[in-house]
Amino acid sequence: MKRNTEGVPVLPVAPTRGRLRPLGLDEVRITGGFWARRRQVNATATLDHCRDWMERVGWTGNFRAAVEGRVPHDRRGREFADSDVYKLLEAMSWQTGHDLDPALTEAVAAAQEPDGYLNTAYGRPGQQPRYSDLEWGHELYCYGHLIQAGVAHARARGEGELTKIARRAADHVCATFGSQGVQGVCGHPVIETALVELARVTGEQRYLDQAALFIERRGRRTLDDGEFGHAYYQDDIPVRQATVLRGHAVRALYLAAGAVDVAVETGDDDLLAAVVRQWENTVARRTYLTGGMGSHHRDESFGDDFVLPPDRAYSETCAGVASVMLSWRLLLATGEPRFADLAERTLFNVVATSPSEDGRSFFYANTLHRRRRGTVPPADVQLPRAESSLRAPWFAVSCCPTNVARTLALLPGYLATTDESGIQLHQYADADISTGGVALRIRTDYPSADRVTVRVDRSPDHPWTLSLRVPAWTEGATARLADPDGAHRTVAPGTATVTRVFRPGDEIHLELPVAPRWIAPDPRIDAVRGTAAVQRGPLVYCAESVDLPDGHETDAIRVDTSAAPQDGPDATVVVPGELTAPGERAWPYRPLDPAPAAPADRTGVVLVPYHSWANRGPSTMRVWLPTTDPDR
Amino acid sequence: MKRNTEGVPVLPVAPTRGRLRPLGLDEVRITGGFWARRRQVNATATLDHCRDWMERVGWTGNFRAAVEGRVPHDRRGREFADSDVYKLLEAMSWQTGHDLDPALTEAVAAAQEPDGYLNTAYGRPGQQPRYSDLEWGHELYCYGHLIQAGVAHARARGEGELTKIARRAADHVCATFGSQGVQGVCGHPVIETALVELARVTGEQRYLDQAALFIERRGRRTLDDGEFGHAYYQDDIPVRQATVLRGHAVRALYLAAGAVDVAVETGDDDLLAAVVRQWENTVARRTYLTGGMGSHHRDESFGDDFVLPPDRAYSETCAGVASVMLSWRLLLATGEPRFADLAERTLFNVVATSPSEDGRSFFYANTLHRRRRGTVPPADVQLPRAESSLRAPWFAVSCCPTNVARTLALLPGYLATTDESGIQLHQYADADISTGGVALRIRTDYPSADRVTVRVDRSPDHPWTLSLRVPAWTEGATARLADPDGAHRTVAPGTATVTRVFRPGDEIHLELPVAPRWIAPDPRIDAVRGTAAVQRGPLVYCAESVDLPDGHETDAIRVDTSAAPQDGPDATVVVPGELTAPGERAWPYRPLDPAPAAPADRTGVVLVPYHSWANRGPSTMRVWLPTTDPDR
Repeated sequence: MKRNTEGVPVLPVAPTRGRLRPLGLDEVRITGGFWARRRQVNATATLDHCRDWMERVGWTGNFRAAVEGRVPHDRRGREFADSDVYKLLEAMSWQTGHDLDPALTEAVAAAQEPDGYLNTAYGRPGQQPRYSDLEWGHELYCYGHLIQAGVAHARARGEGELTKIARRAADHVCATFGSQGVQGVCGHPVIETALVELARVTGEQRYLDQAALFIERRGRRTLDDGEFGHAYYQDDIPVRQATVLRGHAVRALYLAAGAVDVAVETGDDDLLAAVVRQWENTVARRTYLTGGMGSHHRDESFGDDFVLPPDRAYSETCAGVASVMLSWRLLLATGEPRFADLAERTLFNVVATSPSEDGRSFFYANTLHRRRRGTVPPADVQLPRAESSLRAPWFAVSCCPTNVARTLALLPGYLATTDESGIQLHQYADADISTGGVALRIRTDYPSADRVTVRVDRSPDHPWTLSLRVPAWTEGATARLADPDGAHRTVAPGTATVTRVFRPGDEIHLELPVAPRWIAPDPRIDAVRGTAAVQRGPLVYCAESVDLPDGHETDAIRVDTSAAPQDGPDATVVVPGELTAPGERAWPYRPLDPAPAAPADRTGVVLVPYHSWANRGPSTMRVWLPTTDPDR
Repeated sequence: MKRNTEGVPVLPVAPTRGRLRPLGLDEVRITGGFWARRRQVNATATLDHCRDWMERVGWTGNFRAAVEGRVPHDRRGREFADSDVYKLLEAMSWQTGHDLDPALTEAVAAAQEPDGYLNTAYGRPGQQPRYSDLEWGHELYCYGHLIQAGVAHARARGEGELTKIARRAADHVCATFGSQGVQGVCGHPVIETALVELARVTGEQRYLDQAALFIERRGRRTLDDGEFGHAYYQDDIPVRQATVLRGHAVRALYLAAGAVDVAVETGDDDLLAAVVRQWENTVARRTYLTGGMGSHHRDESFGDDFVLPPDRAYSETCAGVASVMLSWRLLLATGEPRFADLAERTLFNVVATSPSEDGRSFFYANTLHRRRRGTVPPADVQLPRAESSLRAPWFAVSCCPTNVARTLALLPGYLATTDESGIQLHQYADADISTGGVALRIRTDYPSADRVTVRVDRSPDHPWTLSLRVPAWTEGATARLADPDGAHRTVAPGTATVTRVFRPGDEIHLELPVAPRWIAPDPRIDAVRGTAAVQRGPLVYCAESVDLPDGHETDAIRVDTSAAPQDGPDATVVVPGELTAPGERAWPYRPLDPAPAAPADRTGVVLVPYHSWANRGPSTMRVWLPTTDPDR
């Protein structure tokens, strides 16, 4: 990655205040391992896949159709289809070595109207008027992704046509929705964070002001109640009064990210504290073991506290992306490692789960339990909607593939930060870091292996502090740090530091207890009572029927948690258990029988990393495994 | 109840073949107890409540608006609003002593077009054309309820204007959808059973033929796939090939009832066997403890096998009504008591649960677990949609109140049958039966008390057999029968009989073990693993927060199933248990701790009949109670 023409860091998010300063894509390079493989597939397969599909289903063509007066007749896709073109442009902007498609940018530019308005679904003859449906129209949502693309282009490649389009759109938004304008908000937040980022890129205060206005207006019921109620679009309670995330998960998380951006730029500690409180309650009560969020299919929303059914886990890929965006912002603002902990969990178990190994099909929803073997969707068919089925190449609502693409493209920007004391490592990957007078070479097979080695290649001649996140998942096990002198010490979950005058060749070793462990759920989560899961390092594991003998399905598994899980070959884990075959009953309830069931034959049950499931053909799957107990 | 003018029995369903002949509302009179109270409220409050609401929200006015050319402008309600007017007319027809509103029948008659077409939502200037949307238009569905009302009127009061309207509509349907006509089916079945019933009333074979055509056409994907797929309206698999009920629960159950009617009238044993198989698999794998059906809110549908989450139980009231309709038909066709068992469970725990004590508010969905105290909906507000909240007076989709009303009105018709051997009692209530030369007086406080006494008031001078259902819920306990000589014997679940020359004054006593018992779920029902419920006789019990000390919610309950539940005062049951207060955690998953939790203080937890819940203000509630075990 070259620096952009202005010589400022290539940052996914660039707050001007806050506890930590992020290191950009020009400063952090992922060189191997888990994420390098996925980024390679993203760069070589997924970006083209998204572009080809959007050509095929006509979403890129919508811009040409708008210019040529062929809408609404020739317009394709849902009302927010423009946004996926923008997300692809954003992904391409971040992606090293990938050229943007100039024709695409030109088509977008041509469709922008003289006053800055830009949307292929509204406002032209035969279409609904502009802003006639703030609840569902997604016009401001589309601007949000357009602006994020313009910001990415400016940061990664210097200001270009895409950035200019974004500026014009943002100016139009400020003129239309400013304090003297339409007193409304968009049914789908995302413009808030985009406007703050544009303010950061351009130095224009008015974009920040407009974002702050949108944050303050939300929660005052300016949107219609609608089928799902005001909470669906977070219009039920003002942002600074809310105590937990609720409603549509992606909307809630994008909004929270925007609120953090506004809070940081304006020094609004109350607003920041409100979002931290929402994050805390959401993580404590409304988050799946995978980091996934959203437990209702009907409205893609959070459930009530502790309502986390694994079989109905919506856990939308985009909610995972948005959750990482939020956690990263909170980490930068506060420096607290708990935010990096959740980001790690979500990256490995939601974001990495969505794409197939070949990067050409995707999970939209990321269920934690699949009872029936699905069928592999045809590679050339767009699924009508998000399904908890096997990965599909494209969806009628196809927000997830482009969201995965942009996240993988900018991922190096989520790894490390700096402050006056030194450098902080938040996520572990094989990576080279070069910033200021420091160059570090990080070598690890994490999350498979237990060791992260940080080798100092260059360092100034004065003491500074290297900070390493000790993941929260090490709780109850032992993590160790060896400093360049070879001295070992135990480190607790949180942050471990080494402060000294580093010399080239110095090595720091962090040893993390990645051995597989049983995980028990909070007893308030009704849906997984009487079950346990396995985690190995940050990776959640699951049972998949392709690993079971004799055509058994995963619902037959009962595990014995009195023995520890063991590492098996090829990144598998083996747990003791049995495969049951309950008899048929005419009625599935019976008077309680105090006599325990006869013991079944014990066997070793093979588990695989959750992110890797459904790459070996149709299968059943479960993360939470019922335990053998007298009640069965 | 007087006989109708033709002197034929007043029967809710009148098959011309089948194992048992039902006794009509002119032969069975409910005289006291559980159902008499509810029928009294229905007659004196619910019928007027429904009529008043439909006036108020304009659904009855739609007919006048259609005649006066004021549609679509003045038409109110959803596309199927006509059907609720018809269901109310049906309920009024069955209800002893209740006059039909002649103005209402006249309005309906006036809106019928010369060719028999009748629907206020389609076909007039400015409206969508007739039958332009078979998936969602509900035109045939509306005819179904119209015809059922016409049949009820004919049976209970003799043929009248309502019956004539129904005949004209049915003739129009035969002309339009006959073998040479539109090769389609309605997105919402119900016309099938209605047409068979009209054939029974009129002796017109063509109505039966048309019903049989609709049954055969279904499952051949003539309807669009739609958002929820073909299974939603059972258009995925032909009726005689399907093995389980699936898709929208009410649709599936009405269709199955219609298929039984066709099978019985045409002597189609294969079709009957197909429905029996579907019923068996549905009851074994897709039915809640309450008898409720439907576990998804999104499409009001059945879930997969053993997917029965109590907190998302849709268990629509109308599905309960439809399930009783189906079971009653299967009982008449086969004589097997298992169908009466399910009907009993569903009547006491779904149909009786929907209306409030005053009969003026209703549950649409009947959840088995409510985590948050709701708020009582205002008595003058129509809820936008079905919610698992507290009972509401009316809904935008308000199928349930009129369905409850018609079921309670015709309920005596579901109690008893006759055949060559004698008389069969299927449901127990304080009731007088008089048919042919036999008069019986049944006295009982069932389901509260354990004794049902059948006193013979009149009997012919030759031997005959009195059959009594011994409920399946007595399994594992002891039921006893005392014959008129005072001889006691133990009777197993199924059917107990007494055959003799009965004398006036003879008494038969059935003693049923109604003491409360713990019920365990099938281990394949993931959502209730590690819990138990209490049943007392046919009544499912629940914990309700209004009975807990100190503002505790029902999710705090842990019960000890090693001790039996005990009867408490006022129909309550008391179980041993404890109230937990889990500490706050930042993250709801943790490494499994093999040490058991410290024991909490034991207390007695009060349970109440499920049907009675939510009559004492907002509360939390649960049927399935987590058990104290080492995993918590």
